[in-house]
Order: sequence, then structure tokens, then C-alpha cells
Amino acid sequence: VKIQTPPGMRDYYPEDMRLQNWLFDAWRAASRSFGFQEYEGPIFEFLDLYRAKSGDEIVAQLFNFRDRGDREFAIRPEMTPTLARMVAARANALPRPIKWFSMPRMCRAEKPQRGRLREFFQWNVDTLGSDDALADAEVIATLIAFVRNVGLTSADVSVRINSRPLMSAIFAGFGVASDAVAAAFALVDRFEKLAAAEFDAQWNAALGASVQAATVRDLLTTASREDCTALALKAGAAGQAAADGFDAVLARLGDLGVAEFARFSPAIVRGLAYYTGVVFELHATAIPLRALCGGGRYDDLTSLFGGPKISGVGFGMGDAPVLEALKELGRLPTPMDTLDAFVIDADAACFQAALGVCGELRASGLTAEFSYKRQPIGKQLKQASDRRARYAVIVGAEIAVKDMTSGEQRTIARADVPAALLRHSSAR
Amino acid sequence: VKIQTPPGMRDYYPEDMRLQNWLFDAWRAASRSFGFQEYEGPIFEFLDLYRAKSGDEIVAQLFNFRDRGDREFAIRPEMTPTLARMVAARANALPRPIKWFSMPRMCRAEKPQRGRLREFFQWNVDTLGSDDALADAEVIATLIAFVRNVGLTSADVSVRINSRPLMSAIFAGFGVASDAVAAAFALVDRFEKLAAAEFDAQWNAALGASVQAATVRDLLTTASREDCTALALKAGAAGQAAADGFDAVLARLGDLGVAEFARFSPAIVRGLAYYTGVVFELHATAIPLRALCGGGRYDDLTSLFGGPKISGVGFGMGDAPVLEALKELGRLPTPMDTLDAFVIDADAACFQAALGVCGELRASGLTAEFSYKRQPIGKQLKQASDRRARYAVIVGAEIAVKDMTSGEQRTIARADVPAALLRHSSAR
Repeated sequence: VKIQTPPGMRDYYPEDMRLQNWLFDAWRAASRSFGFQEYEGPIFEFLDLYRAKSGDEIVAQLFNFRDRGDREFAIRPEMTPTLARMVAARANALPRPIKWFSMPRMCRAEKPQRGRLREFFQWNVDTLGSDDALADAEVIATLIAFVRNVGLTSADVSVRINSRPLMSAIFAGFGVASDAVAAAFALVDRFEKLAAAEFDAQWNAALGASVQAATVRDLLTTASREDCTALALKAGAAGQAAADGFDAVLARLGDLGVAEFARFSPAIVRGLAYYTGVVFELHATAIPLRALCGGGRYDDLTSLFGGPKISGVGFGMGDAPVLEALKELGRLPTPMDTLDAFVIDADAACFQAALGVCGELRASGLTAEFSYKRQPIGKQLKQASDRRARYAVIVGAEIAVKDMTSGEQRTIARADVPAALLRHSSAR
Repeated sequence: VKIQTPPGMRDYYPEDMRLQNWLFDAWRAASRSFGFQEYEGPIFEFLDLYRAKSGDEIVAQLFNFRDRGDREFAIRPEMTPTLARMVAARANALPRPIKWFSMPRMCRAEKPQRGRLREFFQWNVDTLGSDDALADAEVIATLIAFVRNVGLTSADVSVRINSRPLMSAIFAGFGVASDAVAAAFALVDRFEKLAAAEFDAQWNAALGASVQAATVRDLLTTASREDCTALALKAGAAGQAAADGFDAVLARLGDLGVAEFARFSPAIVRGLAYYTGVVFELHATAIPLRALCGGGRYDDLTSLFGGPKISGVGFGMGDAPVLEALKELGRLPTPMDTLDAFVIDADAACFQAALGVCGELRASGLTAEFSYKRQPIGKQLKQASDRRARYAVIVGAEIAVKDMTSGEQRTIARADVPAALLRHSSAR
């Protein structure tokens, strides 16, 4: 039986896994430097967890199944419900602010087609239990720490940022009824993907002609932050509070040294209903329309799952979009498999001694291998080179250590070999 | 809605995740020191992949489901079929020996009850494409490298080891028909969990009375390796080859410095049908009957999945049994969440400057936090201590760095702060 990889799923051969681990390490390093703590959850949850957040429509997008006890489960399509469930369960015991990150594997029942993955990993960073603008700014600065760690600058990417309360105030000023704001946001979220005529038609259908679609298009395309602040202030106290809150976040981005990445973008509102504050997306300058990451502030996710109301701010970044973007930008590394040492027997009679030396190197935390085949030194040196060993350790009557880069070779007393290699290696 | 963690699944709060990452790091370090390369596969596979290996009975033990295209999938219950599929797909391109490891998440549809997990992680280490006894010995030595890394000695654990060809030869000498050997192995695999009378009854039922069950019980309980070799040699050339092959593996365990852990155990044969050579289990001396790990040599896994026949040797170790055993042995660490630095403002007017210093520390790769609340230095120092910061960095008219362990405090020029902390930290 020849059985394939399931459609939309990925095999990680060692070269793929090295790249994936490189990404995981970069995500983890950025999160940890900001003091975020790692958490994880189960690969599947009760189906009701997703129904509670997203309604029955979500079910068709999930891989779901029943156990023999007829309980309904679904493989997680996102981490937010798990995060909310976990925080709700220990709401009173967890010290605030709760600064957590995760890099979960998840699945969505996409129709299998080229480029549409059914399985992916997603970096999630969230701070819960603080309404301070510092929380919003730290989450965004963590994203930028990752961006900088992988070698990107503010010329390559920007954080397109906006405030939902600010936009709500502006729409109120325009005369959009408060119960129609959600519909307006849903349309704004698709604005950049729609032709003008199409946007106008949908706007008129959803919101009537009381607010000119052309006015909204102008706002989304050309309004500066000053324009938007001025418009919001027309809505009175709510507009003032929205403008002040947004200003505070932008000021903290400056304090944290990442202001150069932030770009005010009135067309960014995000599609999810639960955002109630700042919203943002990471975009590569050279790759328009495709967000590499999205996030924002929410007033309450936890009470939906049986806990007290806890506000928070966070984002999610999928692995596939960011790896593709790095590739397109020519910034994708090719992590190589390397060894600290390749141990060689000068002749077959020395092989047992070579194994002993290899064992000592490994016990010191160094990575070391040897040839399974007894063969001349030259062939073993070729293997050492193929395996990208930093040193060849040649075990004969005495022990010679050859630096595989410089070609330099010197004799070392057997007892000193591990220490000598450790000194020159990036061993853990 | 109060929704629970699904039965048999685990939430990893930060303290749980630190322990889990400690285990993953120990698995990964041992694997890498021996030159094994990491791979991964999809969380679910075509259901037929498991049917191909284990028949229809396996289906009830899996979480399986269909997509809208009516394809049948199952969440992976083990890694071996994925490994075999991946190796088979690139059999001709992969340099031999293929030395791979993985730490996959997997699920089994266990009946939910106390201590029975439906989801777990399993360390898999395999060498394919070599029949050399070095391959068997290296895989076992990798297991021992992990054991030693987590602080266990040969007084705590042993590798109970046996050879299926040796046992086949002995059974042949006893007069067990060759088509009955598999049934004999299945019974031997349960020998230590059965009372003598029960074993005898099952042996007689399965294998008839031609071979005395008591003779077999004696063999499994008391026979030394010399006894077993002598018995195997009675079966002629096959017995000789079996004894020689087993001797070669044991000798290589000596060469790799792990002989002290190996304990010959005729009752260890493993339950899986595909083992064809050496078989072994890791056991804690103080916790009998519960294997922490099982493995062995197999002639062929790949041709089952459409590839050429490739032999190999490997093992799997679940996370839960090993963590439980370490706990029972009092060797489980409590990894703590720590920070390199906690940055403190001497008064609120210095907070912006403090954020700038914090940003520089983070950019240097250090982990750093600050208080979201403006409050007196004493309260911030208390927070630094609660967060287990190594240093408190107090930003005022000048910058003071306080070593939180010794209490020693000194003034440092702002430009020198990151370098000073890096010098004294275990930063990545």
C-alpha cells in the first residue's frame, strides 16, 4: 500500500524541521525576553468550546468527531478559546497581569488545494488582566522583537494600527446607528480587497444611503490620524476617550522603541467581533493585502467560558504566511545540520578506542558521530566534511584534532580532548 | 457556559509547560549529541496507514473522522507508521544510516479514567538502513544518555535486553513449531504479569503440552545468558547466528560505555509483531512491571508502506510514564520562571527612561520586565524578587544594578548596563 501525506498536511523532513525549529526559537526568544510565559493546551477540545465563541457556523470548518461515550470534540482551529478556558478556570489564582505565549499546532478543515494548509502552527501572545496602554504596547513590541530578530527592519514591514473605539466614534459622527457599527466594521475589514463600486454597493445594501459610501472610502484611504482624531471628537466624550486611549498606546510604542514600525491605518479593523480597543496587523511592505499577523484588545473573553470578565490584548501569527514572506523577501535562512566532532579511527584496531573518545565527547554535551564502516582516514575525513563537523578527531597511537574549517591539525592528550573542543564549540 | 478540559487531556499552565520543556530539552539534547536529526509529521494520517500496519482492530483505539470529501483520517496513536511512510517516500534519496528522532504529540481513544491519558508525547529514536550492531548499541546508548542527563544511574534503572532470534532458536530447540513462535512470544510478553498457574493454562491452551510450561517458566525466570546461548546452539546454525548477533550488540554497548545499564532478561520479548532482532525495555529498579520505554530491531517497516525493504532499530518513550517515574524516584526538577532583570524607576518621572533601559536589555537577548504600576522602589524590589529576577536595575539620576542574590549594588554607566548583565547572565 502506498499511502500519501494527507492533503493540506505537512511532513517535516530534517531540513524542514530545522527551519521550523528556527522559527519556533525566534518566537520563543522574543516572547521570553518580554517575560511572557509559555503555556499549551490539548490538541482537541469539546466542540461546544468553539460553538460558544463562534456559533454553529464554525462546525463545518472543524475536524470534529465523537468518542465512544458520544461526546463531541474538535481539533483546535485557534488557541483563543483554550486560553480563555484556562484563564477562566484559574482566574482568581493567577497573578496579574497574565503574560502568556504559546506556539500551538492547529487544524482547519480547509478544502484541500494548493497553498491552503489544513494544519499549521500559530504563535499566540496575550496579556490579560491589565487595561494599561503598556499592555498593548508590550504585546506589539514583542512582535517587533521577533521581526528584528529575523533580520527585518521598518523598511520591510510595518504594524498597521487603528482603534475600534476611534472608528466607532467617527461612524457615530457620520450618523451610523450604534447597532450598525458591527456591520460597518465587517465591511471595512474587506475594504482593501474590494473594488470601489463593489464596496459602495455593499455599503449601501448593509447601511443604507444615510452615510455616503464615498465619504467612508475617502476616510479609509486618505485620512490622517489628526483627521480621524478631529472627526472622533465630534462624537463628544466617547470620541475624546477613544482618541486619548489610542494616543496613550502610540506614546508607549515610542517609549518601548518601536514607534518607527507603527503606521496608522483607518482601514484596519480586524474581522473578529470581540475586539474592543486597539487593532493591528503586521504587513510586509513588498507584499500588500496579506497580513502576517493580526491582533488587538478585547474587553472580555473569559466570561464566555464561565470565568469572571478579564480584559486583554494579544495577537496570533501563523507559521506559513511568515515563512512565505521571509522567503519572498530573501530573508529565509537555511539552517544546516552540523556536528561538533566526527571521530575517526586511524586504523580499524583503534576503532574501539575511537568509540570511547566519541562517548566522552557526547557525555560532555558535544554532538559527535563516527563512521559505521571501517575505511581509510581520507574517506572518514570526507564523511566528517559531509556531516559538517567542526572538528575531526583522529584516534591512533595519539589523538589529533583537525579543525575542518582552517585545516589546522594538532595533537592533544586524550584526557584533554573534550575540554579542548568545548572551549571552541557552541555546545550547550 | 463552563466548559472543561476534555477527559484524559492535559492543560499545560506555565509551571507544567516548564517541566514539559525540561523533558523535551533533555530528549533533544541526548538525541542531538548522538547525531540524530529531528523530524515531524502531521497530527492525523489517512486511517488506512494504521489499518495497513495493525489491521481493523486498531480503529476502535483511534480518534477517527471523515472530511467533507469523505476521506477517512485518524489522529496518530504512534509515530512508527508516519516514520515508515516518510522514509519509504524518499528511500533512495536519504543517505544511510538514517538517524532520526521526533517528540510527537499523539492520541489514543482510551476510556477516560484516572491516570489513563488520551493525549501524550512520545520520544522516538530510530536508525534505519544499517544492520550493524553499532546501530542497535547507539540507539540504546542514546536512551542512556537521556537517563544520565536527568540524573539517574544504573542503580536506578536498567535496560532489560533480549534477542528474539535467540528466543526463537531456544523455542525451536524445545520443539515449538515455527508457526507457533509468534503465539509463544505473545504469551512471554505477558509472563511477568500473570500468575504461574494462569501462565501454564494459557501456554497449554495456545501451544499444547508438547513443551512443558514449567520449563518455559524456569527459562524466563532463572536462565542466564550463558544458559540461553547453550540452549540456542542446540538449534544449529540459526542459534549460532542469533547468539553471535546478540553478543555483538552487547559488546558494542561496552564500547559505548553503557554496559553497566544492560541486564539480560529472557522474559523481555515485546508485544509488537514486527520486531526481528534485539528487543529491550527501560525499567526503574524500584518500580517493577512498568516499562518506561520499549524498542527493538525490525527487518522491515517500509515495504508495508510502498517503499523498498529497509531494516532499522529504535524505541519510543512516553512522557507520562517517565515523568511519573522521576517523581516516584524523587528526581523530578521544579524548573522556575526567572528573569535576567527587573527594571525599576526610582520615581515615576524616570519611568520613560526605565522603559528605554528595559528595551535595550531585551534587545541584547536578556529577559526583562518592569512594573505596570508606578510605586515606591521597595514595592518594585519586592516584585523583582517575586519574579525571581537575577538583577534589579534601578533607573534614577544614575543607574544602579542590584544583585538580587547577594544584595550587592553598584552604579553602572547607562551604556554599559546590557554588557554588564550579559557578562553575568546565562543569556542565550
